[in-house]
Amino acid sequence: MSLVVVGSVAYDGVETPHGKVDRMLGGAATYISLAASYFTPVKIVAVVGDDFAQADVDLLASRSIDLSGLERIPGGKTFFWSGVYSADMNDRTTLRTDLNVFADFNPKLPPSYRSEPFLLLGNIQPALQRSVRAQMTGVKFTGGDTMNLWIDIARPELLDAIREWDFLLINDSEAHLLSGEKNLRRAAAKILEMGPTALVIKRGEYGAVLFSKGSHFVAPGYLLEEVFDPTGAGDCFAGGFFGYLAGKGIEPKSGSIDFAEMRRAVIYGSVMGSFCCEKFGVDRFRDLTREEIEARYREFQACTAF
Amino acid sequence: MSLVVVGSVAYDGVETPHGKVDRMLGGAATYISLAASYFTPVKIVAVVGDDFAQADVDLLASRSIDLSGLERIPGGKTFFWSGVYSADMNDRTTLRTDLNVFADFNPKLPPSYRSEPFLLLGNIQPALQRSVRAQMTGVKFTGGDTMNLWIDIARPELLDAIREWDFLLINDSEAHLLSGEKNLRRAAAKILEMGPTALVIKRGEYGAVLFSKGSHFVAPGYLLEEVFDPTGAGDCFAGGFFGYLAGKGIEPKSGSIDFAEMRRAVIYGSVMGSFCCEKFGVDRFRDLTREEIEARYREFQACTAF
Repeated sequence: MSLVVVGSVAYDGVETPHGKVDRMLGGAATYISLAASYFTPVKIVAVVGDDFAQADVDLLASRSIDLSGLERIPGGKTFFWSGVYSADMNDRTTLRTDLNVFADFNPKLPPSYRSEPFLLLGNIQPALQRSVRAQMTGVKFTGGDTMNLWIDIARPELLDAIREWDFLLINDSEAHLLSGEKNLRRAAAKILEMGPTALVIKRGEYGAVLFSKGSHFVAPGYLLEEVFDPTGAGDCFAGGFFGYLAGKGIEPKSGSIDFAEMRRAVIYGSVMGSFCCEKFGVDRFRDLTREEIEARYREFQACTAF
Repeated sequence: MSLVVVGSVAYDGVETPHGKVDRMLGGAATYISLAASYFTPVKIVAVVGDDFAQADVDLLASRSIDLSGLERIPGGKTFFWSGVYSADMNDRTTLRTDLNVFADFNPKLPPSYRSEPFLLLGNIQPALQRSVRAQMTGVKFTGGDTMNLWIDIARPELLDAIREWDFLLINDSEAHLLSGEKNLRRAAAKILEMGPTALVIKRGEYGAVLFSKGSHFVAPGYLLEEVFDPTGAGDCFAGGFFGYLAGKGIEPKSGSIDFAEMRRAVIYGSVMGSFCCEKFGVDRFRDLTREEIEARYREFQACTAF
């Protein structure tokens, strides 16, 4: 079953203690799609300018990502973001954000996308997230991300969007802001009352926590020996998590996804996030294999079992 | 087999978002001993003034902690510390530190302590840690803690001390400072070259990582619904970790402790740290039972297995 991914496709300029790249492929939908493509067929919905390089189209196509929904605006320029990371890479400062064609992004889904059962909404304006979901005629499971900006300036629209979702994937500071609760468990309890069946709270290098009503699963982060560039790691987590679930499909009996599969999905999400950090931008996905993913999953088991 | 615990016994003044206590029993050796006492007999080595209350002696004695090594200085005052926690309780500011009798602490072990096989050195001057270990005639396993201050001002003495230890238990910022490495795995590799067989890096609410040459174990933190007072949680972790190992004893064949037991010890450490935070100061240990500890250990298994 295919996963429809909506969000930004961008060019990024990134500086970390390990180096500096002025312009390279980035964007949430890019990272999500690349990570998810190891588990399930992916169909992307995004917008780029006519500066979008053929080499980058080729990379996405090489992972069999369906690009029918990648709109190209003639005369337009692709979204550009640049930032610099702190020495420990736990903080970053945005240097420049040129929304360009992304400012007027109004996602229209190709007919071939609309009957797919899995939808993952990257961090875009909540009203747009709703309009995308409304175009999906056969959607069974929707996952979505958001950010502090929308929680601050578009809370009612965001709450309307979240109410329709099955999975919400956000980071810990967003969870605190959204719920008004500092304690993670209490924040999660409040957010689950907003509608989603499951909530994944990403905690960066410290892993992630999966909550559903009455139970939770805590996964530590994978310890990398070298983090080159953390850009996109959270999106790769989301892509690995939801891609794994889409690849597994829906329980024929109950029409649902069981919690044990969701736990495994969190680990696959962590695995994909960890690979993302090993090279600049999307570079690790140029040669990453499913065998390496499985090996790291087993390594995760080995270093967390007791 | 008994565990000898050396460190501070103190009075603390603590303010958290949940309340304020002007003066209550505290100190690293207190927390370590109370936590360890659920797993193994404990013998404490510390110094107090003649202001040390009988009720506090009684609490320690109620956990069968051997107090022969608790020196009482006539006319002296017990070490006093006070601090206030930030709203999220991840930071604290020290308001007052009166070392009092702790300034001249020169631990002398009662003869009845010296042949015990397990020694846990709380955070005191590294030269004193060495002198304590030298008094132990039959010590087989030594664990120790330290702090940024000693890494900064007494590095050579600290390295001399660590070289003799089997276990080093420190937090992540101390690991970075001690090793000069920002990356946790590389920091751990450098520290293991300093002598200890195993290194436990405590990460506060995010859990702990156990390292030994060639392998590691990552444990997430237990998610509490309410943290009342995090004072002593790291010490309770150490007490639970080392207390569990002491209670298990030494492998008769190899004379060593296997890595699987050390993993379980990390979880027991986390369990004890989590209980510590549930009430102010040492209050949770007034009624905590071994059954509650085992129930939380099983809860840990349930919310981390995949």
